[in-house]
Parts: sequence; C-alpha cells; structure tokens
Amino acid sequence: MFGNPGAGGYPTQPQADTGTSSFPALPTEQPFGYAQVPQVYGATANPPPGISPQVQQWFQAVDKDHSGKINWQELQSALVNGQGQNFSETACKLMIGMFDRDKSGTIDITEFAQLYIYINQWLSVFKNYDRDQSGHIEEAELAQAFQQMGFRFTPQFIRFLIVKSDPKTHIRMSVDQFIVFCVQIQRFTEAFRSRDINQQGAITIQFEDFLNVALSCSV
Amino acid sequence: MFGNPGAGGYPTQPQADTGTSSFPALPTEQPFGYAQVPQVYGATANPPPGISPQVQQWFQAVDKDHSGKINWQELQSALVNGQGQNFSETACKLMIGMFDRDKSGTIDITEFAQLYIYINQWLSVFKNYDRDQSGHIEEAELAQAFQQMGFRFTPQFIRFLIVKSDPKTHIRMSVDQFIVFCVQIQRFTEAFRSRDINQQGAITIQFEDFLNVALSCSV
Repeated sequence: MFGNPGAGGYPTQPQADTGTSSFPALPTEQPFGYAQVPQVYGATANPPPGISPQVQQWFQAVDKDHSGKINWQELQSALVNGQGQNFSETACKLMIGMFDRDKSGTIDITEFAQLYIYINQWLSVFKNYDRDQSGHIEEAELAQAFQQMGFRFTPQFIRFLIVKSDPKTHIRMSVDQFIVFCVQIQRFTEAFRSRDINQQGAITIQFEDFLNVALSCSV
Repeated sequence: MFGNPGAGGYPTQPQADTGTSSFPALPTEQPFGYAQVPQVYGATANPPPGISPQVQQWFQAVDKDHSGKINWQELQSALVNGQGQNFSETACKLMIGMFDRDKSGTIDITEFAQLYIYINQWLSVFKNYDRDQSGHIEEAELAQAFQQMGFRFTPQFIRFLIVKSDPKTHIRMSVDQFIVFCVQIQRFTEAFRSRDINQQGAITIQFEDFLNVALSCSV
C-alpha cells in the first residue's frame, strides 16, 4: 500500500498489494487485531467466491440485524481498543466510508473483505510498535511507524499528531486514532500527489479546491 | 463573524461581533435552536459575571454530573436536530473543541457562553432558510446561506456539500451537519487566508504544512 519516500516527503506511487508486500500475513485468529472475536450462532452458509471463511464468520457476527450489510454502528459495537473502549464514531464512519461505493452508509461482505485487508495492513504496522499489546503507541514508535510506511515527517509533525490524539497528557495514540490518521493522511497524500505533477513537495492551490480536498477527507 | 466576499472568494477579515452585527438577537426561549430545552431542578446560584441566567440554566441542565464542566457526550445528549436524532459525535466534539483551551475535552460555563453565541450566529443563518423548522435545508438554500456569510462558492461546491451531507438522496443538509461545515470551513478559511498574503485566492503550500492544516481542522 505504501512505497518508499519520494522527493516530497511522501511515499511514491502506491504499490499493488501482492504476496511480496512487506506486510505480515493477516492475522486470522483475531480479526482487526484489537477486536473482540465475535461468536456466531446458528448455521453458516458457504462463503461467497473470494471470501475466506474467517472473514465471512466475522461479517456475520457483526451484522447483527442480518441485513447482509454492516453500518458504522454495527462495526463500532464489535471493535474495542486495548483499554476496552469501543472505537470512535469517527474511526468507524471513516472505515465504512472507504469502501461504501454506493454511498448507502453500509458495506456488504465483498466490500468488508477489502476493508479487512486494508485495516490489517495498518494494524500490522501498529502492532510492530505496540509491543505490550496495550492498544497504544508512543511518540518515538509513531515516528518509526510512519517511516516504515514511507513518510518522512518532521518531529514537530509527529508531536502534533500525538498532541491531537492525546490532548491531556501528550504521550500516546490509540489504535483507532492511528487508523483514522492513516486513512486521512493517505487520502490527503493522494490528493496532494495528483496536484504535485513534478513531485516537488509543494503545490499551488485555489481556495475552493483547497476546501474541497480538506472536506473530502474528513468524516 | 463573517465579512463581505474578498478577492479569493472567501470573506474578508472577520468582523468583531458587535451590536451592529447583521445577525438577529440570540433566541433565549430555545437555546441552540433545535435543542431540547433542558429542565433544571433544585436551587440555582446566581450566574457568574457576564453570564446570562438563560445560559447558566442551560449549562447546569447539560452538566449532568454537576462537575462544572461539559464534555461532548453531555452536549450530545441535549442536542437534537429536527428529526429527533441527537447531534453527531463529530458535531459535538467540534463544538467542544472550539473553546476547550486547556485541551481537557471539556468546557466550563465561561467557554460555554462563548460557544453559545457562536453557534447561535450560524443557527440564525440556518433558520432563515429552514422555514418549515424541519431541521434541514436544501441545496438552493444552502447556497444562499453561504452567500449571506460572505462566501462565493460555485454550484459544484454546494452540490459537493449536499452529497457529502446526504449521501443517499442528495437533497438536504441537517442542522448539525451545517454546523460542522461552518466550523470546518471557517477554520480552513483562516488557515488559507493567513497564507494568501496578497489575497489572490491561491496559495503555494508544502506537503507537511498541507497535512497539518487539513488534520488540524478535522475532529
């Protein structure tokens, strides 16, 4: 998903997700890393083509009203961070929105399978640095995590992210906040890159286009 | 709070909020326009200097744990839009964050009094166009509302806001979504204006500064 740092301090063109990716294999025993493993009761049909049984089981457990779709509330009720708190509304809406192509506010099992891969890639980076499985990482680890993803951020920017994530003590970032920043930074990076034709790390942008980009990437 | 359109399509320097503002007087019988009017039981002390009795009453009712501070959850429980739904987490966090100077996640009664004025200014614009008090406005009204606030947006941008606010039917915007956009657009406008020294409506911006601005204005 991420490449090496380019001239502008952001990764080069995204790489296709192949078996040669530097990301570890997906965890199967515990989807989403810090999620409660949901229990499914009752009969389970064979998964659709291309969907693993693990993904199907997870989807069916989250889809509490058996609508065949998951909304952000259903996703939120299944995701907890290391402190036992549910993921934020912002995080869950962002995740649903990433693959909600028909803008219905929900995703089906095929879209969920894509989300599952996507999030696990970020989580595998996060977990590398969350060695005590607390669901949080600290400032130095966050800097390394972004470096691993191909970004070259200044210490001031890393500090800004930590302060935003932990306004009281300025020490750590939760796993769901990390996912929110990853989604947003990836979107902003793509928007920036498409305007930075010569990859100089700077763009000239009009007011309304600026607003458009900025608002597109928020919830 | 807003001025007339400048060269860049955004309002000129913000105007001081004085008695000569074009905003109507604050509604006192129904704070926040679409909020449930909270009931306060028990003795009520005199309000602090500069705080009106209405604001004090509203604050005390929202401050359910009597901590002297309001967090976003307490604010959310008191605010409903025209459809009987509570305001979104995003809206409530943004509103608290606007005046939460010590980054505690809460605001005290003095900060709340400032928030109260601020939000009512946007609501008075919104209500001008929400003539049936439904808690929603439609595309043409939204365009007029932003024009009233000093922005010159293209129809495409107004459309973008409506689609983002109402992904299913692309028809209308709720009052809490309107407040979210107002807060975000005002923040982005200030960030843009500070970089657009000659007020040309275009800026040149580095990658990390771009990310910084974009992330600062989200929740």
